[in-house]
Amino acid sequence: MELFSEERSAEVVAASFGEAADPRLRHVMTSLVRHLHAFVKDVELTEAEWATAIDFLTRTGQKSDASRQEFILLSDVLGVSMLVETVNHRATGDSTESTVLGPFHVVESPPREVGDSIALDDKGTPCLVSGQVTGPSGEPVAGATVDVWQANEDGFYDVQQPGIQPAGNLRGLFHTDAEGRFWFRSVVPRFYPIPSDGPVGELLAAAGRHPYRPAHLHFIVTAAGYRPVTTHVFVAGSPYLDSDAVFGVKESLVRDVPLVDDPARAATAGLDNPFRALTFDIGLLHS
Amino acid sequence: MELFSEERSAEVVAASFGEAADPRLRHVMTSLVRHLHAFVKDVELTEAEWATAIDFLTRTGQKSDASRQEFILLSDVLGVSMLVETVNHRATGDSTESTVLGPFHVVESPPREVGDSIALDDKGTPCLVSGQVTGPSGEPVAGATVDVWQANEDGFYDVQQPGIQPAGNLRGLFHTDAEGRFWFRSVVPRFYPIPSDGPVGELLAAAGRHPYRPAHLHFIVTAAGYRPVTTHVFVAGSPYLDSDAVFGVKESLVRDVPLVDDPARAATAGLDNPFRALTFDIGLLHS
Ligand SMILES: [Fe+2]
Ligand SMILES: [Fe+2]
Repeated sequence: MELFSEERSAEVVAASFGEAADPRLRHVMTSLVRHLHAFVKDVELTEAEWATAIDFLTRTGQKSDASRQEFILLSDVLGVSMLVETVNHRATGDSTESTVLGPFHVVESPPREVGDSIALDDKGTPCLVSGQVTGPSGEPVAGATVDVWQANEDGFYDVQQPGIQPAGNLRGLFHTDAEGRFWFRSVVPRFYPIPSDGPVGELLAAAGRHPYRPAHLHFIVTAAGYRPVTTHVFVAGSPYLDSDAVFGVKESLVRDVPLVDDPARAATAGLDNPFRALTFDIGLLHS
Repeated sequence: MELFSEERSAEVVAASFGEAADPRLRHVMTSLVRHLHAFVKDVELTEAEWATAIDFLTRTGQKSDASRQEFILLSDVLGVSMLVETVNHRATGDSTESTVLGPFHVVESPPREVGDSIALDDKGTPCLVSGQVTGPSGEPVAGATVDVWQANEDGFYDVQQPGIQPAGNLRGLFHTDAEGRFWFRSVVPRFYPIPSDGPVGELLAAAGRHPYRPAHLHFIVTAAGYRPVTTHVFVAGSPYLDSDAVFGVKESLVRDVPLVDDPARAATAGLDNPFRALTFDIGLLHS
């Protein structure tokens, strides 16, 4: 093996991965080493900065547990989660664009019937959420799985407040009907801060960045024969739409939540008239 | 803020660090984001690989504690520690080249007198270690602090085996005499594996890399008016000199450890004649 030198550091270290049995591991590690060394050289990282980084990364790991994933948060605020999602799910034609999964899909969503309410904590502004799942030719996708979750009026997901929020609050697993449609009662999503009491919060504070995400509702839609999509619908006019802490906003995912005056529909949905309505149709690609 | 797009991901995320009060933080984070995004794009990192990385980094943090620093190990096996050390301590002229600190300098070395033995566990091949500390013009540096530590015959540092090795075994803090000289009794260093029972060990195994470091003795030398140097002396002919798991070897740091036949010197040093001798002179730069 060639000995280490500043000039050839990336080549020397990359070569040490040359014997990896898995060619993909070889490729990924070689690229990682080249970019990591280029970074250190570009900024001439000091020893104090290196020590700060070691401590930061160590604490990021140690802050994580079954209900808190600080490294996903770090990936999120560095735009890496969004980039990985985008690279792996390039939308084409009328298909729905993807966005970040986020760190709060840590439990199975409770199965629910179309028309059910997912708002179990009696907070927030009632809202009818509905949409149609279609394929590339506009064909309705019956029996698609629609997994949804959102934060409550106070800005927390149920898993962040065990014993405070009812289990499964604002979370549900639906199946589309024969016309590919789904609908359920929820509340108008609100903006919320990502957890900022850990190392990632320190980084945001040092960078002069706020921890907020604009109001949104998470979706994972899957159906046999189609590519799954992980996405959000964002509420038009929400604060932080132009400065999402995790860079998740795409223009195509923003929807108005108008006040609808439709007594018949209100009665069917079990809502007072008029009511807020959020419509989000989802276009899938063939797998 | 511009919304996220695959094409402009690095620029969009880098811009979010534009308000950092500290210009150095702004510079470092902007560069980090650019290199990190370039890496993800180069390899088109899959979601499964991203999840593996999140899990790996989390476990690396969680493996670390007061006597084990798995993130330093990771930095070491990726050549980052060596690169940071080299970038910050470019040797010039006859000054001694630096190498990695390593993860085992976690306790203060016990103060010792020149001539003392640091080998407290009755293992290994006795060896006289000596040298002279000089400045850029060859002037002896009296009263320089020479901090040394090495693994024992079984390949472990004292801090890895509390209750098994005597505390302070193979570790010592010396001061040079009026001629800038130091000498002490130790044992001939042996090669050893870095800890491989954690995530870093998994990475090395997957990469087909061994975890060994060639035989070496660690030094940190400091003196008022001079730049400190963190380095090793390596034993000529040791296995793994050409494949150090942490890339620490530099040609200028390798020394023979000859068998010396010198009854008078053996008697002075308290060693049987003939004896092994490791000579390592250290050249400092002005600060
Ligand atoms: Fe969310
Ligand atoms: Fe060592």
